[in-house]
Amino acid sequence: MALIVTKFGGTSVATPERIKQVAARLVKMKREGNQVVAVVSAMGKTTDDLIKLAKQVNDNPPGREMDMLVSTGERISMALMAMAIEAIGEHAVSFTGSQVGIITDEVHTKAKIREVNGERVRRALREDKIVVVAGFQGVSRSREITTLGRGGSDTTAVALAAALQADECMIFSDVDGVYTCDPRVVPRARKLDTLSYEEMLELAACGSGILQMRSVEFARNYKVPIRCRSTFTDDPGTLIKEADPNMESAVISGIAFDTSEAKVTIRGVPDTVGIAAQVFGALAEANVNIDMIIQNISRDGYTDISFTSPKADIMKVRQVCGQVIANLGAREVVVDDTVAKVSIVGAGMKSSPGVAAKMFQTLAENGINIDLISTSSIRTSVVIDASKVQEAARCLHTAFGLDSSVVFEEKQLSGEELAAKAAKGR
Amino acid sequence: MALIVTKFGGTSVATPERIKQVAARLVKMKREGNQVVAVVSAMGKTTDDLIKLAKQVNDNPPGREMDMLVSTGERISMALMAMAIEAIGEHAVSFTGSQVGIITDEVHTKAKIREVNGERVRRALREDKIVVVAGFQGVSRSREITTLGRGGSDTTAVALAAALQADECMIFSDVDGVYTCDPRVVPRARKLDTLSYEEMLELAACGSGILQMRSVEFARNYKVPIRCRSTFTDDPGTLIKEADPNMESAVISGIAFDTSEAKVTIRGVPDTVGIAAQVFGALAEANVNIDMIIQNISRDGYTDISFTSPKADIMKVRQVCGQVIANLGAREVVVDDTVAKVSIVGAGMKSSPGVAAKMFQTLAENGINIDLISTSSIRTSVVIDASKVQEAARCLHTAFGLDSSVVFEEKQLSGEELAAKAAKGR
Repeated sequence: MALIVTKFGGTSVATPERIKQVAARLVKMKREGNQVVAVVSAMGKTTDDLIKLAKQVNDNPPGREMDMLVSTGERISMALMAMAIEAIGEHAVSFTGSQVGIITDEVHTKAKIREVNGERVRRALREDKIVVVAGFQGVSRSREITTLGRGGSDTTAVALAAALQADECMIFSDVDGVYTCDPRVVPRARKLDTLSYEEMLELAACGSGILQMRSVEFARNYKVPIRCRSTFTDDPGTLIKEADPNMESAVISGIAFDTSEAKVTIRGVPDTVGIAAQVFGALAEANVNIDMIIQNISRDGYTDISFTSPKADIMKVRQVCGQVIANLGAREVVVDDTVAKVSIVGAGMKSSPGVAAKMFQTLAENGINIDLISTSSIRTSVVIDASKVQEAARCLHTAFGLDSSVVFEEKQLSGEELAAKAAKGR
Repeated sequence: MALIVTKFGGTSVATPERIKQVAARLVKMKREGNQVVAVVSAMGKTTDDLIKLAKQVNDNPPGREMDMLVSTGERISMALMAMAIEAIGEHAVSFTGSQVGIITDEVHTKAKIREVNGERVRRALREDKIVVVAGFQGVSRSREITTLGRGGSDTTAVALAAALQADECMIFSDVDGVYTCDPRVVPRARKLDTLSYEEMLELAACGSGILQMRSVEFARNYKVPIRCRSTFTDDPGTLIKEADPNMESAVISGIAFDTSEAKVTIRGVPDTVGIAAQVFGALAEANVNIDMIIQNISRDGYTDISFTSPKADIMKVRQVCGQVIANLGAREVVVDDTVAKVSIVGAGMKSSPGVAAKMFQTLAENGINIDLISTSSIRTSVVIDASKVQEAARCLHTAFGLDSSVVFEEKQLSGEELAAKAAKGR
């Protein structure tokens, strides 16, 4: 008998019909001899609708009341899910985040989980019930309802799986696993059977939207195996777990790309000690997210500093950098928002020299110019022109031997759709 | 400084605009120097919509999950109300039934309040906040969320007012007070300035829908003054409080009518000891609500037993009575669902003999036949033909000197609308 914590996102529970389908799936899992916990998100667009209501009564609603409001979305779907399970003939019980003891800090609308009690879940499982839990929410020590921020239901599921020492945490969505690259861009992308936490983290950080980074970090810290699979098929999906030290890892597991960032260059900075600290200190103070940082070799006592930052933060970046160049006596700030980041990720990269070189050469052979480069031990990222991102992903996919013999048949994403996807991702 | 507990029903908070209007009213009350608590119902048709969702996944949803589901409706409106108050510039905090310590029994979907803690409300009031509380819900001692049944928000407000020893409990709705009769039926109906708990209870029991009976009983037991007033005007409304022993009460305070009941007659019952006990024992076991009971004088050892019962229960009544007449050897069961009950209510009736006689005579003079009669110390009710109910209400209103010099101008209810209203009332 295995204890399985499942998670179903908003699309999977968007209508009463889908809730019934998910309920049938949970009952089947239970009747196969498992103990089953289901974490559910709010139905479809419920959360957005609630936020819209809030904006109609208050332009800047207090975080505490916002959490009171939006936490109702998951409560509706959890109660409906429990009812749907009972209708099929298994016993079910739904719990709010507060009732299962998901204890968070006091930071409303983006609380962090501090502790998971889970006692009521354990008791209900002993009573042979399927347990349904509201995702995305918890309760602070001062008994205030909190929410974990967008996508927090993944984190609820992983945290609960860790607390219950579950055998597996299954994240169900409309995608049937983690692919070597987005199949809508690279039609020969392959679904991966397994992946290490580190690789998944790098892929997530580089723009692969399938799992929330926080939940993967949580899973890694508590060694919870995560399985990404589809709500609508029986495909086993992709298992994300600890790297197996006895096995040789694939050199490259996947290719990720991200068009949601802009490149910022500060030109003609006097090359004195502590410039970088001044620039990035000021940006950090303004709460700007910074990704890649490159400082050119100094020439005649002046240097250029480049970095990438989410397009959504660019207004703030311009403000802060305007101040900074005045203070430093730098020449100018140039923002380029037609760039894309392409990354290759693989745990085997550590022990395979020449991977980065092969990447650069492949891009060169395909006439794709590299703007910035950054690396970690299991990742190499380059910034290129946004118009070349699909071409880059495809030629790298082929060059690193990732191509499947099967061609993905779904509609390919256009450049605009890609941009829309990137904008939504932030 | 007065402590005022207010309650706003679903119509009063149906849209973001109305929520903002109510928020402005609460802020005004606060700035006039009062401590203000607001109990809110779910927005407009939210509860009905949630129940519809439930029925789509389970024909017979478990009560516990039903409570989990529908209790979200009030949580949405309470958070929005707190936000709307903050937007005007006063501090507000919203609490669920569970958070303010409304402790109930374990009977899901129609729980009874056992205890109100209210400590968090007191603390928030001391912090100079307007407190918004979700109506209709509580929590059982086993930490399960419960609801108080339809209209339970009135009870929440009165119970909270009792626990906080509030100076007044104001029930806001779309009606500006308690009238001598429904002004849509009797255009010369007068609004009452004050009314005793007992009179209000009798009026509520006889079909006047303005306040939930349970909340009036609660108010009487804990001596909480209730003021019924309109959300949309500044009219002071009607104050319901303890009868003042020093003042002479009006002989008749109001006239109520009810077309939601049917008359059932069991004909030809052998008149032996214990028949009534058998008949009504069986009906009670089947959970049928019984209102008036009349047993005719026996003739030739046989008698007729008549009673009234909600039309919604008539299916069950037919079943139970079918059994009973077989057991008793009675002749037949006749159901008449074209009847109406008209009641006159007044605390002064106790000390004014001849009131009932005057009622019967007035009806006779207007050619209205009386079918059944029942009385209490401050009420006389008759069952008449449903088609005569408006005429009866009007002639009694005139006969007992209740007519106002002002004629109510709103659209009068047609017979069908009256029937629809009665059906909804149950």
